[in-house]
Amino acid sequence: MTKPLALGSTIGILGGGQLGRMLSVAASRLGFKTHIFEPGANPPAGHVADAVTTAPYEDENALRAFANSCDVVTFEFENVPTAALDLIEAQVAIRPGREALRISQDRLTEKTFLQELGLNVAPFADIPDRAAMEGAVAEIGAPSILKTRRFGYDGKGQARLRTPQDADQALADMNGAPAILEGFVDFSHEVSVIAARSFAGEVACFDPGENVHRNGILHTTTVPARLSAAQRTDAVLMAARILNALDYIGVLGVELFVTPRGLIVNEIAPRVHNSGHWTQNGCTVDQFEQHIRAISGWPLGDGTRYADVTMENLIGDDMDRVPELAREATTAIHLYGKAETKPRRKMGHVNRIMR
Amino acid sequence: MTKPLALGSTIGILGGGQLGRMLSVAASRLGFKTHIFEPGANPPAGHVADAVTTAPYEDENALRAFANSCDVVTFEFENVPTAALDLIEAQVAIRPGREALRISQDRLTEKTFLQELGLNVAPFADIPDRAAMEGAVAEIGAPSILKTRRFGYDGKGQARLRTPQDADQALADMNGAPAILEGFVDFSHEVSVIAARSFAGEVACFDPGENVHRNGILHTTTVPARLSAAQRTDAVLMAARILNALDYIGVLGVELFVTPRGLIVNEIAPRVHNSGHWTQNGCTVDQFEQHIRAISGWPLGDGTRYADVTMENLIGDDMDRVPELAREATTAIHLYGKAETKPRRKMGHVNRIMR
Repeated sequence: MTKPLALGSTIGILGGGQLGRMLSVAASRLGFKTHIFEPGANPPAGHVADAVTTAPYEDENALRAFANSCDVVTFEFENVPTAALDLIEAQVAIRPGREALRISQDRLTEKTFLQELGLNVAPFADIPDRAAMEGAVAEIGAPSILKTRRFGYDGKGQARLRTPQDADQALADMNGAPAILEGFVDFSHEVSVIAARSFAGEVACFDPGENVHRNGILHTTTVPARLSAAQRTDAVLMAARILNALDYIGVLGVELFVTPRGLIVNEIAPRVHNSGHWTQNGCTVDQFEQHIRAISGWPLGDGTRYADVTMENLIGDDMDRVPELAREATTAIHLYGKAETKPRRKMGHVNRIMR
Repeated sequence: MTKPLALGSTIGILGGGQLGRMLSVAASRLGFKTHIFEPGANPPAGHVADAVTTAPYEDENALRAFANSCDVVTFEFENVPTAALDLIEAQVAIRPGREALRISQDRLTEKTFLQELGLNVAPFADIPDRAAMEGAVAEIGAPSILKTRRFGYDGKGQARLRTPQDADQALADMNGAPAILEGFVDFSHEVSVIAARSFAGEVACFDPGENVHRNGILHTTTVPARLSAAQRTDAVLMAARILNALDYIGVLGVELFVTPRGLIVNEIAPRVHNSGHWTQNGCTVDQFEQHIRAISGWPLGDGTRYADVTMENLIGDDMDRVPELAREATTAIHLYGKAETKPRRKMGHVNRIMR
């Protein structure tokens, strides 16, 4: 076991979006400073950080100086280029570790990993090329979804096959990117478990949340989720199995489909997760502080849920509703300080609290 | 009524200590940026701010550039030099306004103001010089406390008179500073009300907290405080009277002595207050966000208390207890990131939550 970070240490965060921003605030509560590395100008996380480096992930000098200023480095998104991680890791520890990143950066690797762990996943097939598609469609059928192996999020890089005849168009939509075909899962709803694992190997899970998507983007997460006691236990055990298999340190999100045949893992995210934002107003220690505690060698905090909460994302023009939301009782507002409002851009969220 | 700040505006904060730090975090939740002005190096608020100016309050160019970058300016302590405020105010609004600062910067002015409002205060007398002392001691008697009119906090600038014979020593302790003599109030306990007033003149008060001091520094604040229903109403009405009289915008702390004869105002602070830190873990909207909402022209937020909380300050070597505090369930830790631990220095606090 490694030593905990000294008080006042600096935590490096790769990525300066809203997740980095809320991680940075959580780090401050524990007395840590943060240093944000982000290619884009005026990153939301930079408004609440001790230092910001604005540079591309290819800038080796900037990466070295960044790594040199940090006592540990974490990330808010899983698609950090491998070469940048290699460079940073030569100087300072990255947590969670590289294995979790490697696995979750690629849908094929991720699905294979989960399956080998004995967890249920949707039927899937590797689609390296057009030739593979025919056999896969024959086996998995339709409806199904073709997804790029890498860089997909918020519904990007996906194409649906309603019938096998959609195969050509779906393949064309991938623009030649390696993909996987996923069989359609007939689920009643989606839940996610936000789980954490510490230096000492202790595991803690927040109460599962129930997710509703709109236009491929998370719309609301509600706790408690509709789950039987047995499903709740299953969900937590599945998350723990993933964390332990990865020797994981930090917070990880696991999306699960609820089906009559049991829980099916949709995907995992090796980071704090949009579906865990409710914890800010439903737990003494939220997912952001839990992540900071884990990667800093602190014991995990008290994530017991003390209220019913519905988190709603504010996307694009939802920002016009802020003045009215500001008047709602028992509604906590969290805005991200993004300079420009765009359609489909996550601009903030609210947590509606029912006690 | 002035216009609310635009989304993404910058709030200037005079003072970079823990109050500025927690104000800055609250501002980020509402999508605002902050700019900290602080003479000392490495200010705690700077770890979570968009910009920091390190300069003395006499640096006119620095003050002008600071004011120029801000859409409104507030402060975390009441002893900002008047000349600096004049310079800033020539460019940008200061909230709360100058009148509240003028009154609370001087114990004599403050006590006179409160008395003229019809509120009960301890008997007091102006002590401009040695000659005044004799008459005051004859009138107010002992036990009593001699306090400097300006710049006192955490028990600094105070000398007790146990008997009238202590008068000479007490006066010598003032080092020639103008002072007031305050009669001893026989109170059972101290409470404080954290109150807020918005642009629109709406007033909201957090539930009063009960304060315990150690060595002249706040040790704990507990909610609910021991108060009868009538006392609770009185406390809130007194706070509202002060806010309205000052046409106040922002959060203000009112310390009250609970006595058999009723509530007596000890002092007021025109800012967020240590005794309001419990709100971070007991209310949907805490005192820091309430202040930011008020000065930004937002409606006041929901400060309803949803849990019993005891806030305990971590002072000096209390920091050695952090590893053990980190293991406590239902305890929220808030550290200030101060570079050096010193005796009597406030290093952080914990909120122990009882639901």
